[in-house]
Order: sequence, then structure tokens, then C-alpha cells
Amino acid sequence: MGRTLTYPKRSSNTVNRYKHRATYDLKAIHTIVNSSQVLHVSFSPGPSDPFPAILPMIGQMGSFDYPSAGIDEPLDCYLHGYVSSRIMNLARDSEGDGLPICVAASRVDGLILSLTPNSHSYNYRSAVLHGYAKLVTGEAEKLYAMELITNSVLSDRWEHSRVPPDSAEMSSTVILKVKVVDGSGKIRDGGVSDEKKDTTNDEVTSRVWTGVVPVWETFGEPVPSPENKVTEVPDYITRFVADKNNQNRRYAQEAVHMTLPLEEQH
Amino acid sequence: MGRTLTYPKRSSNTVNRYKHRATYDLKAIHTIVNSSQVLHVSFSPGPSDPFPAILPMIGQMGSFDYPSAGIDEPLDCYLHGYVSSRIMNLARDSEGDGLPICVAASRVDGLILSLTPNSHSYNYRSAVLHGYAKLVTGEAEKLYAMELITNSVLSDRWEHSRVPPDSAEMSSTVILKVKVVDGSGKIRDGGVSDEKKDTTNDEVTSRVWTGVVPVWETFGEPVPSPENKVTEVPDYITRFVADKNNQNRRYAQEAVHMTLPLEEQH
Repeated sequence: MGRTLTYPKRSSNTVNRYKHRATYDLKAIHTIVNSSQVLHVSFSPGPSDPFPAILPMIGQMGSFDYPSAGIDEPLDCYLHGYVSSRIMNLARDSEGDGLPICVAASRVDGLILSLTPNSHSYNYRSAVLHGYAKLVTGEAEKLYAMELITNSVLSDRWEHSRVPPDSAEMSSTVILKVKVVDGSGKIRDGGVSDEKKDTTNDEVTSRVWTGVVPVWETFGEPVPSPENKVTEVPDYITRFVADKNNQNRRYAQEAVHMTLPLEEQH
Repeated sequence: MGRTLTYPKRSSNTVNRYKHRATYDLKAIHTIVNSSQVLHVSFSPGPSDPFPAILPMIGQMGSFDYPSAGIDEPLDCYLHGYVSSRIMNLARDSEGDGLPICVAASRVDGLILSLTPNSHSYNYRSAVLHGYAKLVTGEAEKLYAMELITNSVLSDRWEHSRVPPDSAEMSSTVILKVKVVDGSGKIRDGGVSDEKKDTTNDEVTSRVWTGVVPVWETFGEPVPSPENKVTEVPDYITRFVADKNNQNRRYAQEAVHMTLPLEEQH
């Protein structure tokens, strides 16, 4: 059981709506980030542009300094993705702590179909981190992050691909490291929740179907490329596909019936 | 085929990386936004906070002034979601055009497993909009947006639930309307792409499996709530579940083999 580390509550990350669904627990937040295939990263492009920018990126929580750190311990967020030159230049040119950014991860686990539109909702998990981004310059740390991020796409893929990257690949790869300042998460599970004015109205309840449609991400049968020369789909890939499908489906289906303490959901 | 409307290219929305995957086509961008269950909305909280904020929200493109406007025509983005008081207050207090925000939608359609980590990728669809957000104050427009957004969660749900909302529900509902200034989209489909230095290396190609794992969102069997009194799951729900599952699976599987002109993908 032991200690539970939480992010500090600051004005920028304190959840004001549906507080009972909020978590500041490192483990819950890091787990949502690490199980998301896409992260949305926001930054301000500068004084000449009024609009914040959002990029979809791939990323993972990890610690180069303490590689054995657990998911419930302080970690950095490493990002790699369709990095426009803008965010890279801004991070490269940023002074002091780095470029202030926001990282968000969200997934939908179910559609909550209640009696009235206003009480419709999703079962979902979402996490937000704020922090300062800098380019990773050290070769060893870049390699650490590349392996971490490749294996987040598909477990154990790094060691089963052509590694290490050569020097051209190393220099063309750009990794952002985010020193996290605060974070928060929100988790909604359970079923339908309606108001008494509707649940006691026979005309309404006899007419409106209520319940939950579970939603999850499915991984399909792997499709070999025309150039592929390995006859069988390797075990680590078929196992990944089967495990993910089981986990994802089970989470969405169990979320309908349960409201567990946040710590036990991961 | 007629005209194709596109968003203007400004510095804030011009795609600089993988330009051949970019689209400025209204139809492609609006379709990605409207088929996304969650939108990520970014705004700047103000001078005292260095970090941009991101909220997961539910939203849809639509036009109250021209309700019959097609998906390929100029539309506004209506947002409803877990709206912190911060974004609502900022939008309410914003002067002139409204609060500058960024709206992003992304989905993953497949894992591209190539010979080297550097050539790994996703099949994906993503869209970004920039615009000015204001609160919807007119009752009729609010009702229009509530119906639009409810039906985006599940087709035809609005008319099958207890409507219209009563006055307490109307006043507790807050809708943001975003006047879109620019937008862009990116679509990646197809298979593995590797460099000659690896595809001609027998040691590598005999050892590394390459191909695509399709990924799509699955909707499960609807689970009635304990309070539900409608014995059969209604047709419009079972049809929605079946249609979505077919569409999503087919898109992910077909994306592996095809690189269609962007206009034909939707």
C-alpha cells in the first residue's frame, strides 16, 4: 500500500467541475498518458499569433535519470511526433526552464444514455499535464526515449526491429522532454444517473431506453506488407493484439457496473 | 463535381511536415471533427499563467443561420463539455471577436510496423481549427446546438429522449460557438515505407516482421440500466452500433491498402 504521490493543486490544474471524479494521483495520471496512442500538445506560438496551437504527438512518461522509477513516481514526459518546425524552434530557443506546454490524453469508455439530453455523458478517462519542454540533446537519453516511445506503440517492438538507429537517424530524430509542473486526471465510470422528476415520470420511463453502450479500441488482425519476408506473425505481436483487445473490452464493460476507488482502477 | 471550399493558408495552420498528407478542404476537416467523440480545446488562461490549457469537450460543426448547409460548406463549431468555469468566464468576458481557441480532433487507424523504429508510424486522421469562441445566448440557437451535439453522441438520440429541456436545464447548459478562422487536416493511410538500405539487407528483412495492425473504435452490446423499463433495445441504437462498427472496421482495414485522393475518403 505505502505512500501515494500526488501532484500539487495549483490554479492551472485544479478541477472545479465534478470534483469527485478528479484525481491528482501520479499513478492514475501517468497510466492514462502511457496507455494513450495519441497525446494532444498545446503551446503558444508567440505574440504575433492570438491562437494557441495543438499538435497530436506520440509520448510516454519515463525517467532517464532513474530508469527503474515506477509509474507512481515522479517522471518526465518524452514526446515524439509530427513535430512542426514551430514547436521545435520554440523549444530550442526557449530560455530558462523551457517552453511552457500542456499535454492532454483522453479516451472514451462508454456512452451514457439517460432519460434527458442534459444527463447524457461518457464513461471516460482523461489526464492533463503542464510543464516545460526542452529538446533532448544527449545521445544516450535520446536513445532511451526512442526505445520507450517505440515500445509504447507496440510492446517489445524496439528489440524486434533494426536497431540501433544509425547516425543519420539519430540526428533526424527530435525528442522533447517535458519537466512536469502539475497534473490532474478525471475518471467517470458507472451507469446512468437521472433526476427524480424524470425517473418518477411513467410516460418518460416507458418510452426512453436507458443504459450504457461500452466503447473500446480494437486492434485487428495484423496485415503483412507485400515486402514482408517473415512467414508467421511473431508471438509478441499476436500477444499484444490479444492482450490489448481483452484489456480494452474488459475495462469498458466493467466500467458500466463499477465505481471503484480511483487507485484501484489501474 | 462542382466547387471545393478550402480554408485559407495562414502561418498558424499551414502544415510544414509531410505536406502531401495535408488538406485544407472543408469537407475533409469537418468530417474528422464531426466523427470524433472527443475534441481537445486549447486556450490561454491569461497573463498570470504561463501554460496553455486543454479541455476535452464534445462538439460538432453546424450552422444555425443556414441549418441546411452541407459538411463541405462554412460551418461554426459548437462545443459542450466538461467546461471549467475558467473557459466560460474567459469567453463571457472576452471582448471583440471572442476568446481565441484551438480545437483538435485525432484518431488512429493503424500501427505501421516497418523495419526501423524511425519509419514506424500510424495511419491516422487529424484536424485542427482556430477560431474565436463566444457563449451562445439565444434560446433557439442553444436548443439547435444541444440537439446537434446530443445526436453526435448517438444518431437520433435527441428525439428519443425526454425533450425539450425545461428552463432549469436550458439555463444550466452552456454552449460555446466558435467562429472558425482557419483549419487544416492531415490524413495518413497506406502501408509500410522503408529505406533501401534496409529493404535490401537480407539479415534485417529475414528477421523483422513488417505490416500494419488496423485499429478502430468498437461499440459493444448496449447494457440496459437497472431502472430501464423499455424491454427491447430500440432499433435506432442497435443500428447505430452495427453501422459504426462496420464503418470503423472497414475504414481501418481499407486504409492499409489504399491511398485515395482525400476527397474520396469520406
